[in-house]
Amino acid sequence: MLIEHPYHLFLGDARDALAAKTALGIIDWRREWCLGQMRLPGCKADAKLPDMTPREAAAKGAKTFVIGVVNAGGVLSPDWISIIVEALDSGLDVASGLHIRLGDVPEIAAAAARSGRALHDVRISKERFATGNGDKRPGMRLLTVGTDCSVGKKYTALALEKGMRARGFDADFRATGQTGVFISGRGAAIDAVVADFISGAVEWISPDAAPNHWDLIEGQGSLFHPSFAGVSLGLLHGAQPDAFVVCHEPTRRTMRGVNTPLPTIGDVIHMTIACGRLTNPAIRCVGVALYSEALSDDEARAELARITKTYGLPATDPVRFGVERIVDELALHYG
Amino acid sequence: MLIEHPYHLFLGDARDALAAKTALGIIDWRREWCLGQMRLPGCKADAKLPDMTPREAAAKGAKTFVIGVVNAGGVLSPDWISIIVEALDSGLDVASGLHIRLGDVPEIAAAAARSGRALHDVRISKERFATGNGDKRPGMRLLTVGTDCSVGKKYTALALEKGMRARGFDADFRATGQTGVFISGRGAAIDAVVADFISGAVEWISPDAAPNHWDLIEGQGSLFHPSFAGVSLGLLHGAQPDAFVVCHEPTRRTMRGVNTPLPTIGDVIHMTIACGRLTNPAIRCVGVALYSEALSDDEARAELARITKTYGLPATDPVRFGVERIVDELALHYG
Repeated sequence: MLIEHPYHLFLGDARDALAAKTALGIIDWRREWCLGQMRLPGCKADAKLPDMTPREAAAKGAKTFVIGVVNAGGVLSPDWISIIVEALDSGLDVASGLHIRLGDVPEIAAAAARSGRALHDVRISKERFATGNGDKRPGMRLLTVGTDCSVGKKYTALALEKGMRARGFDADFRATGQTGVFISGRGAAIDAVVADFISGAVEWISPDAAPNHWDLIEGQGSLFHPSFAGVSLGLLHGAQPDAFVVCHEPTRRTMRGVNTPLPTIGDVIHMTIACGRLTNPAIRCVGVALYSEALSDDEARAELARITKTYGLPATDPVRFGVERIVDELALHYG
Repeated sequence: MLIEHPYHLFLGDARDALAAKTALGIIDWRREWCLGQMRLPGCKADAKLPDMTPREAAAKGAKTFVIGVVNAGGVLSPDWISIIVEALDSGLDVASGLHIRLGDVPEIAAAAARSGRALHDVRISKERFATGNGDKRPGMRLLTVGTDCSVGKKYTALALEKGMRARGFDADFRATGQTGVFISGRGAAIDAVVADFISGAVEWISPDAAPNHWDLIEGQGSLFHPSFAGVSLGLLHGAQPDAFVVCHEPTRRTMRGVNTPLPTIGDVIHMTIACGRLTNPAIRCVGVALYSEALSDDEARAELARITKTYGLPATDPVRFGVERIVDELALHYG
């Protein structure tokens, strides 16, 4: 899936910033790809872009109308349909992170057909993947893994892309989830892939590359999450990382959505190496990224010092303190 | 998915027994559910059932016409379509293990609609599963795991069902692959489930049961297979087995379809316990099932003795020597 930019972001009638988190994630990392936004009456989110209609955005050079909002119930309201049809008739592609397939709405399918524009359903994989083969591919790879879901794996991979590029590394973020796909303009939401093709999808997402090139692959779930560990393992085998960073939220006691206790950072390091060796015997941990929003600055520093002392690894909160320490580690071992 | 029996088995123009392995697997384990077969000119497979048309089978009480054969190219030839339509019009449901969806063929969809009969696409999951939650469910569970794909995991689970029932255990085979679904009349092909729902699908396949009831869950793939380990891990977490049996083929050097070396039985025991503890801390290995067709009787006995000595576990070839040793182990620990 390749999504063309500039984007025109649709925020709909988002009841809060969380409902528009896909659009706001795109703004955080790819503001330069975004040309305008469209908000409906009552919208509580703001991407701080000029408000305009799809037709105005198309006239200014936008290529894709991005539905970066989740509405209640997951159904498309009639006023959204007419806006999407307007976008297509104005010459824009339409990309959606909704669970429904845009082409299943007859008016949208008809508009796409008559305008010749593309519909991208990021959450619904159309790509036919091969099964993974486990063969070592040229190029270097780093995967962000986690003690849980929603602990900063995407953020850390994107922050590393920025930090490594600034230090002269040839590095690209590789998306495995829907917001990441919008941010990078390509990739696949691997949680939507049929189970037999998880590792194969990741082999496609992160293909052969130059020997010194780094793919920074967005992790998903956790090897210790009873709902999603299968996705995490297929992702690990397909990514065949040389290096990994463990992402962790220090105040969480049970894993997201279930009653299972959180594993320790050490558990995750040990299991990631034990499983990851299958497709890359050189796999090693190069750092810990702490999602420390719930701590004070002093508490966060103390926790980072404790982690470094316990595991002998650089530890940082990428949001608060940047990723320099981890980039230092990469430069030392692979620079 | 619930498939009603008696079955009428369709063997098509199978070019050899392998092409009809689904039908022949049903016969091996559920001959009493099968009422007749239908073969086309040139068919090289034989389920040793009376040959009859769908209409004749329906008149004798058959409930479901089972397409137990894979044809070259995976497309439905026109003569198959007319036979399937005849089956529906005769009052039979139709169940298929093909990769295509029966209802996508207009003539078949029309016949199903006018007859009110069901179409079961066993390889294409229609069931909407919840994500797994990892909570411990009442009842006992045994999972067959493997050093590779195609090493006897289904056969071993079915042999254990028979052997345990004969010794007074309350035990049921639980299918996770297409042939297994036909054999048990329910279940789901978990390799066809969307990645996020693997463990949730297995929680559905093996639900709450009486405290002394055993579910014997068919394993898939291997935690060490670079194509399919994600499926195997989600299956392990969803199955939350109390006991597992390792299935192994002793002459294989690389895993099926890839260049990855085979793990040892010990590797699989260690990794299955390390991962399986997440949803069942009591998990333990209760035996090894050797798929020893490539060895002589003497060689097989020597290999089984070696495995028992190395791992301190009962070891058998279920086909050659039955599963009594493993049932003894279960009776000792859980009887």
